[in-house]
Amino acid sequence: MIEQKTPRTHIVFREAVLQTDIEAVRGVVAGTGFFSAEEVAIAAELVEERLQKGPASGYEFIFAEVDGAVKGYSCYGLIPCSTVSWDLYWIAVAPDQQGSGLGRKVLDLTEQRIREAGGLAVYAETSGREQYTPTRGFYGRCGYATGAVFEDFYGPGDAKYVFVKRLDRQG
Amino acid sequence: MIEQKTPRTHIVFREAVLQTDIEAVRGVVAGTGFFSAEEVAIAAELVEERLQKGPASGYEFIFAEVDGAVKGYSCYGLIPCSTVSWDLYWIAVAPDQQGSGLGRKVLDLTEQRIREAGGLAVYAETSGREQYTPTRGFYGRCGYATGAVFEDFYGPGDAKYVFVKRLDRQG
Repeated sequence: MIEQKTPRTHIVFREAVLQTDIEAVRGVVAGTGFFSAEEVAIAAELVEERLQKGPASGYEFIFAEVDGAVKGYSCYGLIPCSTVSWDLYWIAVAPDQQGSGLGRKVLDLTEQRIREAGGLAVYAETSGREQYTPTRGFYGRCGYATGAVFEDFYGPGDAKYVFVKRLDRQG
Repeated sequence: MIEQKTPRTHIVFREAVLQTDIEAVRGVVAGTGFFSAEEVAIAAELVEERLQKGPASGYEFIFAEVDGAVKGYSCYGLIPCSTVSWDLYWIAVAPDQQGSGLGRKVLDLTEQRIREAGGLAVYAETSGREQYTPTRGFYGRCGYATGAVFEDFYGPGDAKYVFVKRLDRQG
């Protein structure tokens, strides 16, 4: 039996937003099994808003295509009324790519773009529920500190964690 | 010389949103001298969005009319992805009514409506700049606690304060 070598995957990072990304984002976000139907709908709406309004939407994206298919993405933007703080609205990776380092690569590139745009800090919010322990661990490993915890924020017993990463100018 | 008695002012609280509220809100918010042109534009846009989308906008309003003119208002809503936390997006009172207790009345009614809708907490954000010391004092007097402080949030040296008030069921 000849063992077939897995071909090297080809990863492309893309920042232009395509019409097909509405469904792609829905697929990635729903596929994680982490988000409610309401959250999946919101994630897709942000793509639509970007397609409709362009940069004026305030939403920037980074898509990671693995062998031609969107397998991860981030949605981020300058926080309204701030000149230096950016919000990481979404970051998600398809289940078949989790643990591959793809999320880290998407986040690194996101931070690089924010730094280039003059950003001094990135904010990311997530839930305190047990289910999100890996998410909170991911932010910790990527240099994020817990800036605040709001108890019972999403619902009774479901806190909101706000993570902050300060960006230095050199990167 | 006969001292003319100031007639008792007539205050009406109104929750229906009118087309004229776009300009009224712009006037009240700009009139405070507290907000940037960008912030004034955002305040007015929320009224427009409510007029266009109705309750689906997620923005609720309380307008305080003093002798027929809008002199204060609040804009609030259930925070997306939360079932119990509400955001006080805006509260502002015209300069000629400041110190009259109008802001407190608008806030009390806002909290009452949130409680009636099943809300358990109200969140309000403001700046740490010295100019906002009265605003922070107002929230403190109204029973709000400082939930978080994010340094350099709006800009270098300009922190974001997040105030939280937990609502009991009885009010």
